[in-house]
Amino acid sequence: MKRSERLVAMTHFILERPRELISLPFFSENYEAAKSSISEDLGIINKMFQHEGIGYLETVSGAAGGVKYIPAFSKSYSDTFVNKLCERLEDPERLLPGGYLFMSDILGDPETTRNIGRLFASAFRGKEIDAIMTVATKGIPLAYAVASYLNVPVVIARRDPKVTEGSTVSINYVSGSTRKIQTMVLTKRSLKEGSKVCIIDDFMKAGGTINGMRNLLKEFNAEVVGIGVLAEAEDEEEDRVVDDYISLVQIMNADDRHHAIEVRPGNLLDHI
Amino acid sequence: MKRSERLVAMTHFILERPRELISLPFFSENYEAAKSSISEDLGIINKMFQHEGIGYLETVSGAAGGVKYIPAFSKSYSDTFVNKLCERLEDPERLLPGGYLFMSDILGDPETTRNIGRLFASAFRGKEIDAIMTVATKGIPLAYAVASYLNVPVVIARRDPKVTEGSTVSINYVSGSTRKIQTMVLTKRSLKEGSKVCIIDDFMKAGGTINGMRNLLKEFNAEVVGIGVLAEAEDEEEDRVVDDYISLVQIMNADDRHHAIEVRPGNLLDHI
Repeated sequence: MKRSERLVAMTHFILERPRELISLPFFSENYEAAKSSISEDLGIINKMFQHEGIGYLETVSGAAGGVKYIPAFSKSYSDTFVNKLCERLEDPERLLPGGYLFMSDILGDPETTRNIGRLFASAFRGKEIDAIMTVATKGIPLAYAVASYLNVPVVIARRDPKVTEGSTVSINYVSGSTRKIQTMVLTKRSLKEGSKVCIIDDFMKAGGTINGMRNLLKEFNAEVVGIGVLAEAEDEEEDRVVDDYISLVQIMNADDRHHAIEVRPGNLLDHI
Repeated sequence: MKRSERLVAMTHFILERPRELISLPFFSENYEAAKSSISEDLGIINKMFQHEGIGYLETVSGAAGGVKYIPAFSKSYSDTFVNKLCERLEDPERLLPGGYLFMSDILGDPETTRNIGRLFASAFRGKEIDAIMTVATKGIPLAYAVASYLNVPVVIARRDPKVTEGSTVSINYVSGSTRKIQTMVLTKRSLKEGSKVCIIDDFMKAGGTINGMRNLLKEFNAEVVGIGVLAEAEDEEEDRVVDDYISLVQIMNADDRHHAIEVRPGNLLDHI
C-alpha cells in the first residue's frame, strides 16, 4: 500500500475510534508498513487534524503505548459555531408559551447535533468519564453525539415507568419550573455501580430535572463528573438548584408577549 | 499543502458530508491544488473507501458536477456485523416478560448504533429520502445514526401530547401486541408537507406502532419510502399489519418460560 493510500485508510480508522489507544504495531501489521513510516504518517495526521481544528493525536509512550485521537474543536471554530447558533435561536418565531424555545429543527439536524456533541466532548476532554446520561426525550441525540466523541455508552432515564427493560430504580423529584412531583426511572442493568457519569440535556431552567438525574445516580453510587446543557434559560421564580454545569447558550429575556428574545453564548467557550 | 497532508484533510472533509455534492473547484480552492491533482486525490480516496468497505465516491459530471460520498458497507462486512449481533442477542439472559428482549446495552453503545445506522443507510442508498422519522424513545439513536449517513433531518413523534413545541397533529392507533388504543403526536413545524420519509424503529411485533407512524405521516401528506427496524419478533396472535420493511435481525421462538431464544439475520442483507 502506498503512503497516500495508507493515509486515507488510517485517517478513517482513527476518526472512527476517538480516545481509543491504538498501538503502532497494530498500524504496522494492518497496513504492512515499517514502524518508522507509520510514525511519519501519524505525524502528518496529527498536524492536519490540528490544522483542520478537529483535535489532535495524543502519544502514549512505552511498551503498551500508541496513539489516541482526542476530538477537540479549535477555539476559533467553537466561537464561530456558538455565535451562529445564538443567531439562529434568536428568532422571536421560536418563542413558545412559558418561556420555552422551539429547537426541534436544530436538534433534528444530525450535522448540528454532531457538532454540539463535539463541542461538549472538547470541553470535557480532561475528565475521566464512563458513561453519558440523559433523560428522554430531547436530550437523547445530544447525549449520543457527546458519547460518540468520548467513546463511552449512553444511559437513558425515563419519566414513565412502563418500560420493557426489566427491573428499574425509580426516584421522585420536583420539577423546578412547574413544581410538580415527577418520577424518573433507570433500568438496573443499564449502569454499573460506581460509574463516573456526565449528564447531558437540551434545556435547563431551574435545574429540577438535572437534579433528579443526580439523585437517581446516587442510587447507583455513581459519581457526577460533569453536566452539560445545550440551552439554559433564566427562571425568575426560583433559585437554580444546579450550579456546576456547562452551557452552550444562554436564553435571556424570553418574552412571548412582546415577541422578544436574546440568546448569547454560555460558559462552554471558557472550557475550550 | 503536500498531497499527503491534503489527503488527510480531504478524507475528513468528505467523511463528514455523506451524500453532499462537493465540486472540484471547491476542493481546488480550499486546498490550493490544481484540478488534475484533486482528481487524482479523489481517485485514491475512492479506491481506499472501497478497499475499507465503507462506500464509494459517486462522480457527477457537468458544469455543476463534483463528487458525493455514498456510505455503503461491503457485503462481507455487513454479513459479519449482522451475524455477530445475532450472537450477542441470542443470550437467554436478555429475555424479558412478554417476548421482549433487553437491547439497551446494544442501543446504548454509540459505535454499534453508528454501524447499524450505516447498514440501513447502505440498504436505503438508492432511495430519495427527505427525512427520517421515529417514535420516542428507543428508536431515537438509530434514527439519528441512519440520518447522519443519509444526511437528512430526524423528526420524532411522541406518545404523550405534553410537548413544549407548539401546535401538534395527533392520531390514535391500536397497538398490535397489546390491542390498546394509543396516541401519537408530531409537532406541525417539524415536517414539511409532502416529504419523502423513511421510518426507523428498534422493535416490531405486529407492526401497530409503525402503522401508527404511517397514519400520522398521511396527515402531513408525506410519503413513506422505506421502513427499517432493528429487530422483528414473531407475533402469534396477530397478522402483521406492516409488510414492506427491512429488518436487521429476526427474533424467533423467544420463550421466557423455557429460557430459550433464537436470533437470525433479517432481510436487510438482501438489500446490500
